[in-house]
Amino acid sequence: MNFDSLLKELEHEISQIQGFYPVATFYDPIHYVLALKGKRIRPLLVILSSMALNGKKEDAYDAAAAVELLHNFTLVHDDIMDEDDTRRGKPTVHKKWNISTAILAGDGLMGFAFQKLLQSPKGPIRKMAKRFTDAMIIICEGQGLDKEFEKKESVVFDEYLNMIYRKTASLIELSCELGGYTASGKTSHIKLLSKFGRSLGMGFQVQDDLLDITAEEETLGKDVGSDLRMHKQTLLTILLAQKIDERAIFKMNLSDFKRALADYGVLQQAREIYLKYFSDAQNYLRQLPDNAANDSLRELCDTIKNRGK
Amino acid sequence: MNFDSLLKELEHEISQIQGFYPVATFYDPIHYVLALKGKRIRPLLVILSSMALNGKKEDAYDAAAAVELLHNFTLVHDDIMDEDDTRRGKPTVHKKWNISTAILAGDGLMGFAFQKLLQSPKGPIRKMAKRFTDAMIIICEGQGLDKEFEKKESVVFDEYLNMIYRKTASLIELSCELGGYTASGKTSHIKLLSKFGRSLGMGFQVQDDLLDITAEEETLGKDVGSDLRMHKQTLLTILLAQKIDERAIFKMNLSDFKRALADYGVLQQAREIYLKYFSDAQNYLRQLPDNAANDSLRELCDTIKNRGK
Repeated sequence: MNFDSLLKELEHEISQIQGFYPVATFYDPIHYVLALKGKRIRPLLVILSSMALNGKKEDAYDAAAAVELLHNFTLVHDDIMDEDDTRRGKPTVHKKWNISTAILAGDGLMGFAFQKLLQSPKGPIRKMAKRFTDAMIIICEGQGLDKEFEKKESVVFDEYLNMIYRKTASLIELSCELGGYTASGKTSHIKLLSKFGRSLGMGFQVQDDLLDITAEEETLGKDVGSDLRMHKQTLLTILLAQKIDERAIFKMNLSDFKRALADYGVLQQAREIYLKYFSDAQNYLRQLPDNAANDSLRELCDTIKNRGK
Repeated sequence: MNFDSLLKELEHEISQIQGFYPVATFYDPIHYVLALKGKRIRPLLVILSSMALNGKKEDAYDAAAAVELLHNFTLVHDDIMDEDDTRRGKPTVHKKWNISTAILAGDGLMGFAFQKLLQSPKGPIRKMAKRFTDAMIIICEGQGLDKEFEKKESVVFDEYLNMIYRKTASLIELSCELGGYTASGKTSHIKLLSKFGRSLGMGFQVQDDLLDITAEEETLGKDVGSDLRMHKQTLLTILLAQKIDERAIFKMNLSDFKRALADYGVLQQAREIYLKYFSDAQNYLRQLPDNAANDSLRELCDTIKNRGK
């Protein structure tokens, strides 16, 4: 399937937020964020999931725009909390403007996310809104856990999985589920879409954490070193701590750390973890009706799995 | 009507937010904010408005809790933006913890506001959720306008009214309207409740801005002086600028400013403005069915009008 026309209509839908009064301080940063675009994976998943259950894509656009707006709300606020200066190659909102402006812009994106969702022409709206709200709260819990990890001496692997489920996978799960709702799909099919999204989201995040390091190794491992010095828990330190004494890890210099990752097979282990999630995701897809949208979901899954960064 | 039992049930309802996983970083500040209580005027208005249209109070509790949570979300984020250190006599969230924690707590309060609203057992839920979302966006616009005013040379009175409508009155308007919806009231009655809430909210805010100054005069007018030095536009500078050259106002010292306010009748003028709003509010009430809840709304209106601060 050619995603270009789909993405074009999606851009239009996302840009169509309806304010009530022109307030530059509020709307300029919102339009700035939305113009940065990004990969639009989540809204694509909403639309393809809807089509996979024979829904009309027109009925899924509002929910698709809603998840993208929700995603952008989390990015704007997380960037403040994580003190990130750039996003998609451009200054983050709190850097380009200031923290107050970024807080308000994030709040607004959240409001417009709900506005879009409530415009959905099809599907059980109360249930959809409830799931949307729950996901938003779960994402906040994930961000809270992530912040707590920065102060923890030790994090076990299950806690890490719990955190990435909340922070990342829950929204991808929601995207697929909402798509199913807008198609007025069967409950069993919507459950499969939900499981597909959750597995895809988990695989996506584990792989992302691994790619962070691979990419950094190529660029002299700058951030791996800084994480180590800051005693920050990452996927790799957590997995390595299953093999050797945790306190030893944070005493290592960068080259010792890398050697340990290789010697103890941690990179390979992380790779196996995410491949398992992607394989689970594909299995759920195979239990859904065989159609063009299902093929597209499989392709999207493969594209994500094979990405370099 | 005795509000004590009503308020007790309300407290219980507000405290019953349903998270999914215990994350102290996220939930501790949320519970801290909710325990500070405040006057609970907005949720009281939801319940009384519902009862004024012969609704059952049990059907209004969720919507009542929702508007209080929404209100608290705005307080937590506004306190960061306005750099306020205390709220209700206690440290604000970003002071007690930090800005990141306060951003996340505010986001969570917003999520729980929607969670509560969607639990409403009665009323047209899609319409209620749409109005709730619109109000949230309008409040953000109001906060944006307020921030813009800090940088403006000159603000005309209509712009001030537009700002306080968005920032304050819109939520009080929403509270009364939602109450009407939970009672499944007639459209014409809900419209009257909405107008009642809007007038009450406008009167409340104009009076609040005047009280700020009266209270400050008693305590040597400290903040009036600082606002003047900072060239900050307030209700009083805006009204005074209708009488004398604006540039002259910000050249005044505090005692000259006070003398000008008296000489030009600005304090009296502000008082007449808010009294007119309260009188409008009472007029709308008189067009609604005459019952005990209607009496209580009138009493609440009087209590607000006669408050010292």
